[in-house]
Amino acid sequence: MCRFLAYCGEPVLLESLVSTPCHSLIEQSMHASEAKTETNGDGFGVGWYSERSEPGRYCEVRPAWSDENLQSICSHVRSHLFFAHVRAATGTAVSRANCHPFKAGRFLFMHNGQVGDWCHLRRRVEAMIPDHLYASRTGTTDSEAIFLTALGRGLEEDSVGAFQSVLHDIRDEMTASGIRSPLRFTATWTDGERVWAVRWASDNKPPSLYWRNSDNGLIVVSEPVDAQRDSWRLVPNGGGLVARVGGAPEAFTFH
Amino acid sequence: MCRFLAYCGEPVLLESLVSTPCHSLIEQSMHASEAKTETNGDGFGVGWYSERSEPGRYCEVRPAWSDENLQSICSHVRSHLFFAHVRAATGTAVSRANCHPFKAGRFLFMHNGQVGDWCHLRRRVEAMIPDHLYASRTGTTDSEAIFLTALGRGLEEDSVGAFQSVLHDIRDEMTASGIRSPLRFTATWTDGERVWAVRWASDNKPPSLYWRNSDNGLIVVSEPVDAQRDSWRLVPNGGGLVARVGGAPEAFTFH
Amino acid sequence: MCRFLAYCGEPVLLESLVSTPCHSLIEQSMHASEAKTETNGDGFGVGWYSERSEPGRYCEVRPAWSDENLQSICSHVRSHLFFAHVRAATGTAVSRANCHPFKAGRFLFMHNGQVGDWCHLRRRVEAMIPDHLYASRTGTTDSEAIFLTALGRGLEEDSVGAFQSVLHDIRDEMTASGIRSPLRFTATWTDGERVWAVRWASDNKPPSLYWRNSDNGLIVVSEPVDAQRDSWRLVPNGGGLVARVGGAPEAFTFH
Amino acid sequence: MCRFLAYCGEPVLLESLVSTPCHSLIEQSMHASEAKTETNGDGFGVGWYSERSEPGRYCEVRPAWSDENLQSICSHVRSHLFFAHVRAATGTAVSRANCHPFKAGRFLFMHNGQVGDWCHLRRRVEAMIPDHLYASRTGTTDSEAIFLTALGRGLEEDSVGAFQSVLHDIRDEMTASGIRSPLRFTATWTDGERVWAVRWASDNKPPSLYWRNSDNGLIVVSEPVDAQRDSWRLVPNGGGLVARVGGAPEAFTFH
Repeated sequence: MCRFLAYCGEPVLLESLVSTPCHSLIEQSMHASEAKTETNGDGFGVGWYSERSEPGRYCEVRPAWSDENLQSICSHVRSHLFFAHVRAATGTAVSRANCHPFKAGRFLFMHNGQVGDWCHLRRRVEAMIPDHLYASRTGTTDSEAIFLTALGRGLEEDSVGAFQSVLHDIRDEMTASGIRSPLRFTATWTDGERVWAVRWASDNKPPSLYWRNSDNGLIVVSEPVDAQRDSWRLVPNGGGLVARVGGAPEAFTFH
Repeated sequence: MCRFLAYCGEPVLLESLVSTPCHSLIEQSMHASEAKTETNGDGFGVGWYSERSEPGRYCEVRPAWSDENLQSICSHVRSHLFFAHVRAATGTAVSRANCHPFKAGRFLFMHNGQVGDWCHLRRRVEAMIPDHLYASRTGTTDSEAIFLTALGRGLEEDSVGAFQSVLHDIRDEMTASGIRSPLRFTATWTDGERVWAVRWASDNKPPSLYWRNSDNGLIVVSEPVDAQRDSWRLVPNGGGLVARVGGAPEAFTFH
Repeated sequence: MCRFLAYCGEPVLLESLVSTPCHSLIEQSMHASEAKTETNGDGFGVGWYSERSEPGRYCEVRPAWSDENLQSICSHVRSHLFFAHVRAATGTAVSRANCHPFKAGRFLFMHNGQVGDWCHLRRRVEAMIPDHLYASRTGTTDSEAIFLTALGRGLEEDSVGAFQSVLHDIRDEMTASGIRSPLRFTATWTDGERVWAVRWASDNKPPSLYWRNSDNGLIVVSEPVDAQRDSWRLVPNGGGLVARVGGAPEAFTFH
Repeated sequence: MCRFLAYCGEPVLLESLVSTPCHSLIEQSMHASEAKTETNGDGFGVGWYSERSEPGRYCEVRPAWSDENLQSICSHVRSHLFFAHVRAATGTAVSRANCHPFKAGRFLFMHNGQVGDWCHLRRRVEAMIPDHLYASRTGTTDSEAIFLTALGRGLEEDSVGAFQSVLHDIRDEMTASGIRSPLRFTATWTDGERVWAVRWASDNKPPSLYWRNSDNGLIVVSEPVDAQRDSWRLVPNGGGLVARVGGAPEAFTFH
């Protein structure tokens, strides 16, 4: 399990969400409240959009809580759209290549959840990645494999449909293999203009997902970053939302 | 606060204490039971004696729980005398130079505790380090400064007296500076032949320290590494013990 | 291109070859003489056998020349059979998962060379890895993929034949794909009892490979570690050698 | 010896100097042309000013040439004033705390050179650091000690005078201690509004220092980052220059 955060709206310093709030993402790296694992110390990453269509990215294998570089970057980078993630590894190595957010072209992707019995299923999911994206497979996580496969299924045109298609196929593979552990997919992704977030699991127990409209923009989080819990809305199991930078989020169903 | 472990006796694989037991030191790096901070993920170190008088050392800034190198070293290095430490930083940077055990010549030293208001006192304590040892000061911790100062006060002849002398002087400096936060010193050190362990604090609240005679030798720990709690004996506040490899530990008072 | 070193014979400290000689492997990490790239600073690794059938391993993404841990391990680990490698990356990431020697069960493997146009061929070579070894694929190098595939083709029974079979298939794939850049394979591997080393390339330009019988045992290197160049023998292009710990090396052809 | 680069002028992406030019600073990390050591692989750092008075900073112990984070930051951070440095360690550890540029308040500082026989002189130079800056001493380099001492001698009012005063005192200490190896100081620093660069050595052999006015601003480098060598001007031994962002550089003497 992991914790993540996405923002789009008026340009703000990354620190305003990543490190400053009382229950900021960096605080969650040491003391998550709503995760199975309180400690999310197996690496971290931030991705942000600036003047280019492709995002910048900084990730490291150390815990977020002690990384001075992360603090400095968050204090000096202002962005209208950024992602941040602290990782709790579930079976795969702690390496930069396994850190979220994953990046491909102008897309960023973060995942909280897992493909049950991944080490048995990995080969079959990797086989779904199209040839032209295979060189982009740098790590060993289920998350990156899902992302690259979705990219190959039209993430640019119909991103929700692309992920649904991938998840259905993985679920079919799991069923065919007799795997009973669940497929859980609480995730968020962006093409640099819109942000999507979804919450779904084959066992109806997806990790939590909240959102809020702040004065400046939309915030999507694994768990609230501040004490104003009433101001956060839970994304329902089987639900999702999408928003343009500066626009109102729209809900949709995801299954 | 930190967690540590020392062993001397029949040569055993490091893993038998560092990683195999149910509440091993690596397990304590994620879930310490008796420490102020449950997570000890700010680096770690192991030091061991082999055929040389000077010990070997491996330390890293990552958490112990995810480091494959540590697992491999612990599975393949057998030693009659070794130290291991997982760190929870209290104000100083996470760096190799700040990882315990500290090493100087044939000595190893580990500390759990702190000098209150260290950032104000640091200069005065570093001034106590003798010239010929000053080049060995590679980090910024209170622990390393205490160790090097004690080395300069006769660690080779009277190691208990050397540390007592240093702690008294630091306490005097704290008093002179009006520092009210405590000086806590639960520590263990070795010259490669004997192991000392002490538990003391200016506020009578030193971190915990336990020991046990196993079938193979003496084990000294911050907290028990297994579920047989009855088999572990608590070192009293203001107490210490010393043992030769293969010999019975002797208790002493430390104040 | 990379530089490597293998030893088997009387137990010696790793430092006697890895760090002490005038042109030791650590020296070669900064100043290789016979490699295309003088600098081999993209990570390193050592693997050694002790009392277990499976070897220990320490690898890191930093250059070998500045790593205090490596120095300390080499000064304190004594082994009858060990491998060491300094890496110059050729297109794949600098990560622990891409460091040699690779380990699987009781085997170690190191490679100096490359599969031409690897990023296009990778998928097809990974497809050759058998299912039961696929979870062991942790990095993205051609070297690790060759090793795991060879493991699946009987490395335990006929290790030379297993590697030949893999290389022939890769060469066929390269031909079928119209890849003209060469397949080069200067490599060494061990099962903990015997050490094999081979030198071969599809363009007859394999990286260099030398060996020597010292007073204590057999040393196999990318380039001599000392100034006594006359004492080293070059393995011919298309040649190989195999030796048991303590036994005389036997030459064979490899193509 | 090290290689560095400073820029002030129109806001540009860091990559335009750090990674894009044919002999960029990242290229110099592997193949410096005018340095004693061709390889500058002992860590690196970048510091940049954005909307705050204090600069941001990213540094790491790995070589610059293989760090994806550095590439990404340089491709996405645009600044009117930034510093970058690749390190070749001369006796002190490879650690983040020893990476340039050093930062204190709104100042950045980079140094290429060394205090002869530093390990003997260190204590006396550290003693020159004033109390209120001593907690900022995080590493063990001569460079950081010089910087903090100069800060304590009026860097804000007369920065050239402050450094001259420190260097004179260090030189006196060296003379008093009978140290014959030289004191070399090719350096650049900034308060966020002006950039200073100087070139001086006690043996008249300071490391090289060049500058150029580009279309966008002033560039100061250890060695030219492109092939247009005629466009670069060498700072004379015993000379310096200072420039405001957007202003013309003025020369001065430094001794």
